[in-house]
Amino acid sequence: MDPKLHGFIDRLNALNFKDMYNNDFFLTWEKTDDELEAVFTIADALRYMRVNNISVKIFESGLGISLFRDNSTRTRFSFASACNLLGLEVQDLEEGKSQIAHGETVRETANMVSFMADVIGIRDDMYIGKGNAYMREVSKSIREGHKDGVLEQTPTLVNLQCDIDHPTQCMADMLHIIHQFGGAENLKGKKIAMTWAYSPSYGKPLSVPQGVIGLMTRFGMDVVLAHPEGYEIMPDVEEVAKKHAQATGGTFTKTNSMAEAFKDADIVYPKSWASFAAMEKRTNLYAAGDTDGINALEKELLAQNAQHKDWCCTEELIKTTKDGKALYLHCLPADINDISCKNGEVEASVFDRYRTPLYKEASFKPYIIAAMIFLAKCKDPQAILKALAERGTQRWMK
Amino acid sequence: MDPKLHGFIDRLNALNFKDMYNNDFFLTWEKTDDELEAVFTIADALRYMRVNNISVKIFESGLGISLFRDNSTRTRFSFASACNLLGLEVQDLEEGKSQIAHGETVRETANMVSFMADVIGIRDDMYIGKGNAYMREVSKSIREGHKDGVLEQTPTLVNLQCDIDHPTQCMADMLHIIHQFGGAENLKGKKIAMTWAYSPSYGKPLSVPQGVIGLMTRFGMDVVLAHPEGYEIMPDVEEVAKKHAQATGGTFTKTNSMAEAFKDADIVYPKSWASFAAMEKRTNLYAAGDTDGINALEKELLAQNAQHKDWCCTEELIKTTKDGKALYLHCLPADINDISCKNGEVEASVFDRYRTPLYKEASFKPYIIAAMIFLAKCKDPQAILKALAERGTQRWMK
Amino acid sequence: MDPKLHGFIDRLNALNFKDMYNNDFFLTWEKTDDELEAVFTIADALRYMRVNNISVKIFESGLGISLFRDNSTRTRFSFASACNLLGLEVQDLEEGKSQIAHGETVRETANMVSFMADVIGIRDDMYIGKGNAYMREVSKSIREGHKDGVLEQTPTLVNLQCDIDHPTQCMADMLHIIHQFGGAENLKGKKIAMTWAYSPSYGKPLSVPQGVIGLMTRFGMDVVLAHPEGYEIMPDVEEVAKKHAQATGGTFTKTNSMAEAFKDADIVYPKSWASFAAMEKRTNLYAAGDTDGINALEKELLAQNAQHKDWCCTEELIKTTKDGKALYLHCLPADINDISCKNGEVEASVFDRYRTPLYKEASFKPYIIAAMIFLAKCKDPQAILKALAERGTQRWMK
Repeated sequence: MDPKLHGFIDRLNALNFKDMYNNDFFLTWEKTDDELEAVFTIADALRYMRVNNISVKIFESGLGISLFRDNSTRTRFSFASACNLLGLEVQDLEEGKSQIAHGETVRETANMVSFMADVIGIRDDMYIGKGNAYMREVSKSIREGHKDGVLEQTPTLVNLQCDIDHPTQCMADMLHIIHQFGGAENLKGKKIAMTWAYSPSYGKPLSVPQGVIGLMTRFGMDVVLAHPEGYEIMPDVEEVAKKHAQATGGTFTKTNSMAEAFKDADIVYPKSWASFAAMEKRTNLYAAGDTDGINALEKELLAQNAQHKDWCCTEELIKTTKDGKALYLHCLPADINDISCKNGEVEASVFDRYRTPLYKEASFKPYIIAAMIFLAKCKDPQAILKALAERGTQRWMK
Repeated sequence: MDPKLHGFIDRLNALNFKDMYNNDFFLTWEKTDDELEAVFTIADALRYMRVNNISVKIFESGLGISLFRDNSTRTRFSFASACNLLGLEVQDLEEGKSQIAHGETVRETANMVSFMADVIGIRDDMYIGKGNAYMREVSKSIREGHKDGVLEQTPTLVNLQCDIDHPTQCMADMLHIIHQFGGAENLKGKKIAMTWAYSPSYGKPLSVPQGVIGLMTRFGMDVVLAHPEGYEIMPDVEEVAKKHAQATGGTFTKTNSMAEAFKDADIVYPKSWASFAAMEKRTNLYAAGDTDGINALEKELLAQNAQHKDWCCTEELIKTTKDGKALYLHCLPADINDISCKNGEVEASVFDRYRTPLYKEASFKPYIIAAMIFLAKCKDPQAILKALAERGTQRWMK
Repeated sequence: MDPKLHGFIDRLNALNFKDMYNNDFFLTWEKTDDELEAVFTIADALRYMRVNNISVKIFESGLGISLFRDNSTRTRFSFASACNLLGLEVQDLEEGKSQIAHGETVRETANMVSFMADVIGIRDDMYIGKGNAYMREVSKSIREGHKDGVLEQTPTLVNLQCDIDHPTQCMADMLHIIHQFGGAENLKGKKIAMTWAYSPSYGKPLSVPQGVIGLMTRFGMDVVLAHPEGYEIMPDVEEVAKKHAQATGGTFTKTNSMAEAFKDADIVYPKSWASFAAMEKRTNLYAAGDTDGINALEKELLAQNAQHKDWCCTEELIKTTKDGKALYLHCLPADINDISCKNGEVEASVFDRYRTPLYKEASFKPYIIAAMIFLAKCKDPQAILKALAERGTQRWMK
């Protein structure tokens, strides 16, 4: 066999990830280090095989169901790409098109769409306390459906972004970091700054900063969370980050100074978000149908944002990072000064210099999603990789 | 060969269904008993093979076109599942997205979308006298297109619900009954109650009650149709039911009492619908663009409905059925008391007890649709089943 | 090998089309005669193989991305059919669904959706000076993305209609003509009339008349462009047509008389369009957000149109064509007198007599698109055709 592929399989052989089989992916901190490494390894292996024109289709037929409760280009295409790569056809479950809007219970819809579904990807990040809970309800419903003999297979649930975590994004970010630094073993002691940044829009999800501190603290790094007062994230996730930092010999610290966070940082991730408290308030206002309250809150939050226009990733700030060359990350799209808005999260010249690495960062997402599906579906992933290599079907008859 | 699969092929060998080849599926009563049994048998065979991880993809490429003139989750996903199972990719023909809305003739659009289509599934149940007629016009157009050398293959038309019948639903209901009673041969003399039930919404299609009495009367059962005065269905379909009952030694009776229908019933199917006369009136109002008339009719029909809130499938009524344990059917979603509405079609405790069988009932639909396509496409279905088993391609490389 | 398929390969062997490999398709006049003949030949070959039930899937996985900035049935289904035929799954990039609407740059979106894309089809015909420029920007972005290591393959761009040309339509029209006249070699000296016709709607794209005169002048035909004063097309494209006519020994002439254009014509293509100047004006009004100006312009243009209701393809006019039997072409849908509108582009009896040829004309489009993709993806198309024939996978296991 190809020695590189052999290497991936060897790495997998050293890991224990048997609980991922037939399981879902909700939050990175519910997974062991071995399990996360298995995802990274499979993602790299699938990419390697695709680049070498070897088909990794493990399904001859089957559906991948996507349910997006928010507009999305990137995540939608990443999910579609991952499903297609493995042989699944995407069917969108759109509330407008379907009868979900008419008061159907989650349990019923989840079963009705799953008769031939092998995976369900959900993005539901708008309302604090709702998105992740909804995903778990869907998962519980289809697992019951399988147990009761309604479904002949158990669709795997992949969290494509919820109110708590954004695992496919943060895992893609992390795999990008690993590749940039030449291996996870080189990350010990590296400083990463997850910082708030100003945006003229409001109500951006908390899932990225939360996902980042929940994940990056597992690699022995010095993780700094920076934001103005009033932009606190979920306290539970901060607890997770603290525990991780302690366990891996890294640190997790907080600051209200962007400059302090950037100082000597190896990696910076400046990005806008709404505060946890504000999002909780908004969720309640939506639940109560209080339109006046929602509009008043929006004004209030935009005014609050506007007090922090100085939270911008400038050339000046970048100069203060390690050798003036920290790796700049963003989940995209970014609010770029004088491009997408007057004042935003980042200066145009900074963004432009990092454009190619940013696009590469994004390019890992389809493979991360595919790897999550692969590990949930294959009881013996090493054997399947080997079988795929031996089958040797070309992805593209060029 | 696998003995179970052998059994399916043996059953098919005893049936005459040669007219299904290259044909459409509009109404169950246009098909012979043998043809319906062939659909059930192929549906069971395809399911059996899928469960045993044998791919039944008979198409390497090709499109399955869906045209839904009403919101739909279940039927949309059932059609997509069936197409995917056989190797066809679904393309939705949405009126919003396309130029149908701009006055194109049916004939032209039907041909334009069909150059690589192998099946067209249409749901058009809103207007009495229109849906089925529209489907036949589409079918006629593409058959002409094929004859004239425009289309290189003839797409099969599958009726996914029209104003007259809902064959994929009722065939799925029936296959569920057959499995629950251990075979069609055990249905003789069984009593089934197709009854109206109260719903706070109005204008539900007639296709289910009509499809049920048109189909269930063919199995020697005692079929009772129950509804309040003023909720009559299409007289033509009642004639069909009468003829079927006579031919099979069963009965077809009508009553205005839900209690009478439930008494000693083996199977109950309580479900709301609008009256034929009201739907005909509505169709004319829509055709005339008479918005005031439509609104007035809606009010009138809701008020009429509200007089029959006692038409509910209660625990008390269920107790009066055969051994207090009739099989409860519904096409879903049901209006459940205190769940989806205050007063609805069924008490929550009844619905809940039958949840798993209800979901199983729904699970037959994708296979019924796939079987209809399979029989229209394969000149010798037994040979194809055998070839698929011998090919032995795994659906899923697990 | 099959002698007919052998013939296609022999023809390809005589042509030089090596620059099509890994290239885009924007405008027919950017391609050499050999390259266009290669498209026609591959289109015929793919069709021949499909009719003979030989799968031409060259992709095991991969996405075909469609971006439509205008409603579309035909082109949407043609693109979906072409992608499906070759093994690609279509993913629609809809502005409504995605974040494009939120000010993302073209470069970023183009890369974000392309990680697993092998082809991108764009229709953007609404605004003069914009559509083709947008496509080139997308192409440039993804080619940079590939060079920078972001994309592992280079998606090919296919112009599904822009402000300048409609190459997939005109190539389909031309292949239809070639088949009707028994070969391109029989077209020398034939007269084709591309004429304006009245329509009660306004603002129809210029891409068809422009594409037609740009392409048809390459076959030694006498191409006449006819329209009322005030309906001028882009001057640049007229220059292209003149140059082509000179090079091939044909002619390109203009007239303001429909009768003159039809006189003794072998082929007629009567179709409505807006004037170049008016579309330019509209584009500027849209850019300025001048709603009043847009409405005023619409009224003005409709009034202008109404002065030319006599520009209709009547039976009387058809009688003046060669033997009274010119081949009538249209890209569909046509505005038919007393069918889709009171006064339109063509009399119903004329349209009806040509219905089957018109549908056949349209049937070439999926194959033209597939051929464009095939030539961009296969370095040695002859070898791939041979390999597909030898593989002999059935498209449909009938």
